[in-house]
Amino acid sequence: MNKMTIKSKSNSHIKDLAALKNKPAKYFLIEGFHLVEMAYECGALSEVLAVKDPNLNVDTILTTIEIIEKLSTSMHPEPILGLAKMQEEAKNVGNRALILDRVQDPGNLGTILRSALSFGFFDIYFLPGTCSPYNSKAIQASQGAIFKLRLHFLDQEKTLEELSSLGYEVYGTSLRDSLPLETYSFDKAAKIGLIMGNEGQGVRESLLSKTKANLRISMGGIDSLNVGVATGILLHHIYSLK
Amino acid sequence: MNKMTIKSKSNSHIKDLAALKNKPAKYFLIEGFHLVEMAYECGALSEVLAVKDPNLNVDTILTTIEIIEKLSTSMHPEPILGLAKMQEEAKNVGNRALILDRVQDPGNLGTILRSALSFGFFDIYFLPGTCSPYNSKAIQASQGAIFKLRLHFLDQEKTLEELSSLGYEVYGTSLRDSLPLETYSFDKAAKIGLIMGNEGQGVRESLLSKTKANLRISMGGIDSLNVGVATGILLHHIYSLK
Repeated sequence: MNKMTIKSKSNSHIKDLAALKNKPAKYFLIEGFHLVEMAYECGALSEVLAVKDPNLNVDTILTTIEIIEKLSTSMHPEPILGLAKMQEEAKNVGNRALILDRVQDPGNLGTILRSALSFGFFDIYFLPGTCSPYNSKAIQASQGAIFKLRLHFLDQEKTLEELSSLGYEVYGTSLRDSLPLETYSFDKAAKIGLIMGNEGQGVRESLLSKTKANLRISMGGIDSLNVGVATGILLHHIYSLK
Repeated sequence: MNKMTIKSKSNSHIKDLAALKNKPAKYFLIEGFHLVEMAYECGALSEVLAVKDPNLNVDTILTTIEIIEKLSTSMHPEPILGLAKMQEEAKNVGNRALILDRVQDPGNLGTILRSALSFGFFDIYFLPGTCSPYNSKAIQASQGAIFKLRLHFLDQEKTLEELSSLGYEVYGTSLRDSLPLETYSFDKAAKIGLIMGNEGQGVRESLLSKTKANLRISMGGIDSLNVGVATGILLHHIYSLK
């Protein structure tokens, strides 16, 4: 564990960190006390930068609020930043998985990850075209859920193969040609995978055609739900199965 | 129905509209084709500004994209804006009401209104300190739900009085001292009011102490949900009561 002080914006390490701000690679920046603490508790924190020493058992850089501002995406950041390590290849050892097919808005993604953690969907599959969980807005909205979930980055075919080989029953979601969630008989003891889709286009047809069933949330009128809300309702329903 | 062309940013009517951008008063601006159409269908559109005549039976101002940009909150707006009229005092004639106690984020508010419309909660009470439904981000996130809901702006006491006099059973939501939603026996035939609270602080104690019961969503772990997601789960549950 090293401790050092850096007060120059042109310091090469600060420049390296600044490069991660928009392009996370192996490591990513996290902002504020809550996320730094969560990353620390989960063993994902590799370095902390702060104006005042937070006394964590991790490499620490004492720095200025100007440098924190330079590295932060917030206009008025908390005086602490963390450098966190991206997950290594995760292994699906659970029985509830969420598959994201091109969910695009980082805020939606973050609330989805938060809900997934709350309802025990610990394995998350990010199909190509889905917003990165290392996007800083997504991390904020997830409230740090990202550190407690297992993240998988496989293409569509490999995702379905993996889930199938693990014995998952995979469900799609769609407003058309689908069954109402509320009356569907799930096998609670089975491993359950759920696919949620893009904000505008939903889940792609080539996935919907390979599921055990496709479900929809019953609603009055012709209206639709925000994808974060819809995901929350589905995960809660499956979590609460009797 | 009048039609005219305005191409000068310093035109006094454009200046009046610009003043509404941040301070809606009696009227408010809406952006894009979808919202303009929705306001039109709901009879709330009093004027449209567009680069190309949309041929709506309403006062129309043909204008430039520069003026649209000036009036819009978006960097790259669609070439159409509407001037919509705020609701007059609404009358609660329904049987499902949502009471918002200091929900602050406009995005959260918008998704909540969208869910309320989807699940038949047509009467919305905005307690003091709650984000305005006329906030432009809230309108966008609501996808126009605002035009189909009945909006009420009363203080806490008057809200509870009104709901009580109409025969509502009012429920609070709280993580502490509350009953699990999933096993609570609602009277489906009753009028049901649900209070959702502030992102950080939840529903205030002085409301929780006056409800029929306070409910919570069952979750694994110690985590919490985004207020928009939590609201969606509660509204869906009540909508789906058997």
